[in-house]
Amino acid sequence: MPRTFTLGPVGLVRGGLKVLREARCFYAEGAPPAFVEIKPPFRRSLRGTQFGSDGMIITWLHRGRRHLQSTYPEDDKTGPRSGVFRTRSPNRPEPMGLHRRRGTEVRTDGLLVDLLASNDGTPIVEVKPVVREVNDA
Amino acid sequence: MPRTFTLGPVGLVRGGLKVLREARCFYAEGAPPAFVEIKPPFRRSLRGTQFGSDGMIITWLHRGRRHLQSTYPEDDKTGPRSGVFRTRSPNRPEPMGLHRRRGTEVRTDGLLVDLLASNDGTPIVEVKPVVREVNDA
Repeated sequence: MPRTFTLGPVGLVRGGLKVLREARCFYAEGAPPAFVEIKPPFRRSLRGTQFGSDGMIITWLHRGRRHLQSTYPEDDKTGPRSGVFRTRSPNRPEPMGLHRRRGTEVRTDGLLVDLLASNDGTPIVEVKPVVREVNDA
Repeated sequence: MPRTFTLGPVGLVRGGLKVLREARCFYAEGAPPAFVEIKPPFRRSLRGTQFGSDGMIITWLHRGRRHLQSTYPEDDKTGPRSGVFRTRSPNRPEPMGLHRRRGTEVRTDGLLVDLLASNDGTPIVEVKPVVREVNDA
């Protein structure tokens, strides 16, 4: 098995948040709708995706500082540091963001989703269905 | 921004399913417990992870055929093909698996999880908390 793997993003967030690091202040509440634009070579992978279905979107937090392994949760520097595996920090060894979102419109070039706490231009590396008992509650 | 990103897995599934492709037949039901072994350089990222907390585990399906973009859901070749973004197929452009699991024991070298429909030796690329309204329902 190779020791590393290569990701070539399948898409980009369009719209979404405009201010760098603003995403950290948001959960879903208050976040804007966004367009999950799928690049032309990968649009066949959208086939059959339905309006109104829930999906998991995995983003690549390309500005994340990968050497950082602990952080102050909620930027509270009076509390203890936490390992990044238990936080949403974008600074982590494999900087991925994970969002469960509903597709409100399916187009041939991507998905309009109800809201997405992610920055405009963020690379998208995976789109998956929500499957009960696997990645759902 | 670079056109590709490199993943160096943070861990490996230990235990889990032993038979290649068996994971496709399972949802969580009937799957065995497994150990999410974190490699030594990344163990600091576990700091503060608590027993009994739910996490999302992202695996890299290293045997996935990345050129495939559609599949027959449930291997039913009488039905229509679906784009892989709406299936759990391991054959997809960025072959990742996503599992919501409960940690039943936290060790310094990893997490014992209740059950994991993933093959022994599968690379782990990310461990994240479940956060309501972000990646939860």
